[in-house]
Amino acid sequence: MAKNLKIGLFGFGCVGQGLYHVLNNSKGFKADIVKIAVKNKTKDRPLDKGVFTFDKFEILDNPEIDVIVELIDDADEAYNIVKYALSKGKHVVTANKKMVAQHLQELYNLQHEKNVSFLYEASSCGSIPIIRTLEEYFDNEQIQKVSGIFNGTTNYILTKTISEKLSYEAALKQAQEKGFAESDPTNDVEGFDAKFKAIIIALHAFGVFAKPEDVLNIGITTLSDYDINYAAEKSYKIKLIPTVTKVADDKVSIFVLPKYVNSNNHLFSVDNEFNGVIVDGEFSGEQFLKGRGAGGHPTGAAVLSDISALSYGYKYEYKKQKQNPNIKFTNDVTLKVYLRYNNEEELRNFVFDSINEQYTGGEYHYVIGVIKLAALIKNKEFILKNKLFVASVGDDIKLIGKSENINESAKKQVAFA
Amino acid sequence: MAKNLKIGLFGFGCVGQGLYHVLNNSKGFKADIVKIAVKNKTKDRPLDKGVFTFDKFEILDNPEIDVIVELIDDADEAYNIVKYALSKGKHVVTANKKMVAQHLQELYNLQHEKNVSFLYEASSCGSIPIIRTLEEYFDNEQIQKVSGIFNGTTNYILTKTISEKLSYEAALKQAQEKGFAESDPTNDVEGFDAKFKAIIIALHAFGVFAKPEDVLNIGITTLSDYDINYAAEKSYKIKLIPTVTKVADDKVSIFVLPKYVNSNNHLFSVDNEFNGVIVDGEFSGEQFLKGRGAGGHPTGAAVLSDISALSYGYKYEYKKQKQNPNIKFTNDVTLKVYLRYNNEEELRNFVFDSINEQYTGGEYHYVIGVIKLAALIKNKEFILKNKLFVASVGDDIKLIGKSENINESAKKQVAFA
Repeated sequence: MAKNLKIGLFGFGCVGQGLYHVLNNSKGFKADIVKIAVKNKTKDRPLDKGVFTFDKFEILDNPEIDVIVELIDDADEAYNIVKYALSKGKHVVTANKKMVAQHLQELYNLQHEKNVSFLYEASSCGSIPIIRTLEEYFDNEQIQKVSGIFNGTTNYILTKTISEKLSYEAALKQAQEKGFAESDPTNDVEGFDAKFKAIIIALHAFGVFAKPEDVLNIGITTLSDYDINYAAEKSYKIKLIPTVTKVADDKVSIFVLPKYVNSNNHLFSVDNEFNGVIVDGEFSGEQFLKGRGAGGHPTGAAVLSDISALSYGYKYEYKKQKQNPNIKFTNDVTLKVYLRYNNEEELRNFVFDSINEQYTGGEYHYVIGVIKLAALIKNKEFILKNKLFVASVGDDIKLIGKSENINESAKKQVAFA
Repeated sequence: MAKNLKIGLFGFGCVGQGLYHVLNNSKGFKADIVKIAVKNKTKDRPLDKGVFTFDKFEILDNPEIDVIVELIDDADEAYNIVKYALSKGKHVVTANKKMVAQHLQELYNLQHEKNVSFLYEASSCGSIPIIRTLEEYFDNEQIQKVSGIFNGTTNYILTKTISEKLSYEAALKQAQEKGFAESDPTNDVEGFDAKFKAIIIALHAFGVFAKPEDVLNIGITTLSDYDINYAAEKSYKIKLIPTVTKVADDKVSIFVLPKYVNSNNHLFSVDNEFNGVIVDGEFSGEQFLKGRGAGGHPTGAAVLSDISALSYGYKYEYKKQKQNPNIKFTNDVTLKVYLRYNNEEELRNFVFDSINEQYTGGEYHYVIGVIKLAALIKNKEFILKNKLFVASVGDDIKLIGKSENINESAKKQVAFA
């Protein structure tokens, strides 16, 4: 039966307030928010002052509290809180993707060592129950690939560039005015946020641990009107897509790149602030999940679901990790990309394995071809500094040196001969 | 830890064979298929003869077997098998939506009485984990509505009427030739299959029990070129949509009708044999799940997931039923429909609460307006016999006599005045 949880809450912004309201009105289970830790001492708050504290240890060292719900922005402070709480044997629910992704291996070990639950559904794709679905439903399914739109801010901007023909700059400005993008949008528009989520999801889908600093993320900051026009001409849309692919039995590739998608792709119809996830299973085929990716309520719903699961003693089993303890992250893959460049000299920085298309006209030059991911990693700063635009095209992500590749390229050469 | 399951399998068609293969190759858990019951004594089968039996009691009365996986077509025989197995204290996994929907209350009671697991994810929407998601993720979310495309056969036919401008009859014929529709397609095209799934989903989303004979299903058999042209003119698509709506705190409406959907609806992009489900939660907003709805592999994936869950002792908690034991099914609602009729006399059978549009031209006549569901139930045979076509339009489903309705209609009258 459900347990009566005693909760210590960190943060009382939009998500925290919604959660407080819903917990007090839930028929399903009993969970009391005993204490709420907040930072700002002067802010007016809609609850009795006695429920708030400015001292985190008043919650963390309170033996009555058995669950910590962490909803603050600061990833470093969130890490301190979560680590301390887990060490003290408290269960933890968090929405902080950056914190989880940066310390995934350590927090994985700590929760096992202390035998406590550490749940973070709200960290990935808002209200879409992606982690739970991977853990509970696809636990014995061989997954080939997980990809999607994990960041609502960039998707809103990209939607406007297509639907209203706005430039990237104008769309970003509109997103900021409407509150969809922060005044410093780096985390979203450069693809860091999407990367953190992809790293978390990769553990649950494939059992692989990857470090944020090893995973390439190139965002949409260099998107130009040329690239937008290219999409429009081909009836494509541009989406920022984190892709997690099993490229061999024991190898998983992860990267975040813009992508040209056509209308056959489930993600084509995921617009504005929505998120979408495609899980490609060997047996089940493509599963597609779509929902609101950002905002207080969707995040709150995911946090609520974790708290509810906790009341039944739920823990992530990390079954994929246990099934595949030797699975490793790799960047040794090739992929097909569109690269817009400004002059021939720039292009010389990029060694393509094969070139499918090349276009030169006026100031607009692009090449489409197969390239090693390492070549993009090496040139990331160069791409951003010189405002080149790179986007993936198609779905072939292949491990370098894998035998099928050799055969296929041999076949291709014969075909061309 | 995971338990080693001993499985007795009923049926060895496409799903059963795929399952056998996957179970024998799964890293995740150990489950042995001890015995397989089949009907046809002369068929050649790819396994050793010793594993098969033609006597169901050889499985049902075998104390070594603790799990029954039921994958036969015959709903009545499936019911006998499942009831006997549950009574004997065996866990049961089934994919038979008709059987589950028809005996839902009895099988609900029996599994509680015998304290066994009864899992049927594969019965609803193929590989989409809708039951598990409702049970585990939305267990404390107030859901407003669940609707979707639950039947791949009709969706394939409807897609062809729009994308290839085929008539209903030509599209059905094509579906039969390609193996997407059975030679007797009644169950699919008249909406029975979708209804069974909606009834199962309604229990997990809202806690309500509904009997198949009380729930209206009108399918797509009377769809004419006029109706298809109407959709094309308005840039709509026609989809067969089961709709389960909470119309009051203690009242849930369920019906299956064709629907005109526009491109703002998530289901607009669910084509061919795909299924899609929209879960509309108060807190989480609209969640959309899409996946392959039919076929051996998607169904097998869902069965596999249930078996895997069983190995961890999983049971449905039916939390919504326990939270809302007094919730009742109702047909006392109004909805907005498009009704195509052949002559004025036919139209007199239908009393509309209000009429929004009426069109008469040549042989094509339709009316769009708000009508009581009871008026459609009363006229169901009349609609089918005279080949009228009815489709829902818009999303307003309201309990008759609910006070908001009165206020709103009062407001509306003022606005028109």
